[in-house]
Amino acid sequence: KINGQRLWDSLMEMAKIGPGVAGGNNRQTLTDADAEGRALFQGWCEAAGCTMGVDGIGNMFAERPGTDPDALPVYVGSHLDTQPTGGKYDGVLGVLGGLEILRSLNDLDIKTKHPIVVTNWTNEEGTRFAPAMLASGVFAGVHTQDWAEDREDAAGKRFGDELDRIGWRGEEEVGARKMHAFFELHIEQGPILEAEDKQIGVVTHGQGLSWTQVTVTGKDSHTGSTPMPMRKDAGLAMARILEKVNEIALSHAPHAVGAAGHIDVYPNSRNVIPGKTVFTVDFRSPELAVIEDMEARLRKEAQAICDAVGLSVEFEKVGGFDPVEFDAGCVTAIREAAERLGYSHRDIISGAGHDACWINRVAPTAMVMCPCVDGLSHNEAEEISPDWAEAGANVLFHAVVETAEI
Amino acid sequence: KINGQRLWDSLMEMAKIGPGVAGGNNRQTLTDADAEGRALFQGWCEAAGCTMGVDGIGNMFAERPGTDPDALPVYVGSHLDTQPTGGKYDGVLGVLGGLEILRSLNDLDIKTKHPIVVTNWTNEEGTRFAPAMLASGVFAGVHTQDWAEDREDAAGKRFGDELDRIGWRGEEEVGARKMHAFFELHIEQGPILEAEDKQIGVVTHGQGLSWTQVTVTGKDSHTGSTPMPMRKDAGLAMARILEKVNEIALSHAPHAVGAAGHIDVYPNSRNVIPGKTVFTVDFRSPELAVIEDMEARLRKEAQAICDAVGLSVEFEKVGGFDPVEFDAGCVTAIREAAERLGYSHRDIISGAGHDACWINRVAPTAMVMCPCVDGLSHNEAEEISPDWAEAGANVLFHAVVETAEI
Ligand SMILES: NC(=O)NCCC(=O)O
Ligand SMILES: NC(=O)NCCC(=O)O
Repeated sequence: KINGQRLWDSLMEMAKIGPGVAGGNNRQTLTDADAEGRALFQGWCEAAGCTMGVDGIGNMFAERPGTDPDALPVYVGSHLDTQPTGGKYDGVLGVLGGLEILRSLNDLDIKTKHPIVVTNWTNEEGTRFAPAMLASGVFAGVHTQDWAEDREDAAGKRFGDELDRIGWRGEEEVGARKMHAFFELHIEQGPILEAEDKQIGVVTHGQGLSWTQVTVTGKDSHTGSTPMPMRKDAGLAMARILEKVNEIALSHAPHAVGAAGHIDVYPNSRNVIPGKTVFTVDFRSPELAVIEDMEARLRKEAQAICDAVGLSVEFEKVGGFDPVEFDAGCVTAIREAAERLGYSHRDIISGAGHDACWINRVAPTAMVMCPCVDGLSHNEAEEISPDWAEAGANVLFHAVVETAEI
Repeated sequence: KINGQRLWDSLMEMAKIGPGVAGGNNRQTLTDADAEGRALFQGWCEAAGCTMGVDGIGNMFAERPGTDPDALPVYVGSHLDTQPTGGKYDGVLGVLGGLEILRSLNDLDIKTKHPIVVTNWTNEEGTRFAPAMLASGVFAGVHTQDWAEDREDAAGKRFGDELDRIGWRGEEEVGARKMHAFFELHIEQGPILEAEDKQIGVVTHGQGLSWTQVTVTGKDSHTGSTPMPMRKDAGLAMARILEKVNEIALSHAPHAVGAAGHIDVYPNSRNVIPGKTVFTVDFRSPELAVIEDMEARLRKEAQAICDAVGLSVEFEKVGGFDPVEFDAGCVTAIREAAERLGYSHRDIISGAGHDACWINRVAPTAMVMCPCVDGLSHNEAEEISPDWAEAGANVLFHAVVETAEI
């Protein structure tokens, strides 16, 4: 078993970097806080006797050697970046859970046949630079590195420039590493495990996602002196589209969700009718056909809403991935580990996207989940118990060591 | 008559300061660009032989002496600050039209009994610091100076600190000046004069305004893993309220308008359900009872919308003024000037708020309007013709000189 107290202490130590405003974290990707978190992780890995590799897009790989020089490594990890008002566990538990495996193997003086590599994937959250899971996507060949580096944040800063600025561009070619398997531990970010009092979620599938950025163009004009019939109010059209987003998602209940988290209004002045709004609609479902239907209906309904009032609308797909089915062997390894350790468990579909969803394309992959309080995540109040963290890390430990072979 | 070419040249010269991104201006109040615009205006006033007074809140007063030492000055002016994506004429025409009167009086070597003072009122637009017409409001005793100085912009900067920073806090006590009358020339910012092919609007009334800042609080959580029934989506509730704002205004057609120009969503991340939205509803009508009805209905409807989905909502009145009736004598002076000069004219109600609306409380006041292309304002594409500007300034000239007595 792993050392639950050490894992928890490390989580709390990492949470000191990039503190939020309400007890959580703001350690967004490629910020100074991200660099600081990376350095802390690197120091811990080196203290545990690992060598650190960094690839050209900032992905970090801490390697504990195996006994067989020909055996491909077993990878394990997640991400250290957070939402602007994020929690202390989303991503971090998976990275530090991986580190805890290495530390425990050292304590127990266990050697594995396959090397074990703990990863920190760059920009999983996708909040500063869309899309989410950007660097694991490049690693898996879903995006080109050039395209990823050209992504811009809201202030117009390029991903590639910010990577250089914080000094975490490495030498390794992105995606050159070959994997025996990949495992990711993550908090559920939803309410199911807690509600059913299960310690472990065995993640069999991940639901798919579609991010459509909608730009409604009206005409900015005076809120006082522009007669109602002459208005081209991009804010009002957006409001109608947001209501439709909700309707569309509910029409597929309970197999779909939809909302817009990102909304910008221009020029955003109290006495100027919005001339432009830009917002991103997030639709998800475990079924590809449902996602495609929701996307198509969004475009049709938004177009109709804007046509009716003489506004124009444009759509850009800024992120997305298809529903994922994880590797049967890896899933079984997780289920059996939970069983062996005597933890209550259930199969579960991940509601969120994870680096594992991309890595699943290039290596046998699966995920283990632990509950989080009230299903709350992407919120500074995100919380888990030390026991939940320990149980998740123990299952990860057993599945990884089983796969890496003693 | 005034010199139309010189007026136009000055307008174009001022428009070089704080250029926008699309041919207009971004010379928001108490920015460096505002300071530069003030300095240009001061230089022009001094070159015209005036003395410049500045009060404790940055209002500027350029005085051309009269012949009677006991006669109170006639004031004329408007504002040099602009919207973030504002036009070249909104406000500026009224200040430089006033300056053009002084220059023309010098050219014609005319002395008036009453001094004539050209004013630039600080922060008319209210876009950076709500409410609008802030400094003329302090001058007229509507707000205290302390309260005004405590207003904060979106970055949390205080009005008073920014005034000091740009170096335009003057020595004069705010509101100490007594006025014989006040006149303001402004572009219509609406479509009526152009549609009816009138050169001059004789402003008899100003419609009233109410700015209610609405804060909807939900719970930020993951867009993917939070089940639809568990969501507390402050963005969706806002969308419903925005639809109601439109309905409420239309229910009073054609005597009311309503919209929200300012909308902020928190944390504004693509994969976080908005936990909070803050937006400002702008309702206007020439009838106080209509404004009061709209405000009350907004609060009731927004409360019901939020109650229905378990969100909380708060309201704060961040700006407003009652409908205004301008001084009969001053209005007549304007109508007669237009008549005498042979300009087509009509009486009109101002759709926008103006410094004149506050000054009307402490001095006999009226306004003259000229058309603007397509009624468009608070937009960088705001446009007027040199002829319209000249006609408006000529009417202002005659009304002011008539009132100041030769
Ligand atoms: N796990 C997680 O929150 N990932 C961010 C990508 C997503 O929005 O699902
Ligand atoms: N004239 C003008 O645009 N004033 C700004 C205040 C308002 O919103 O009416």
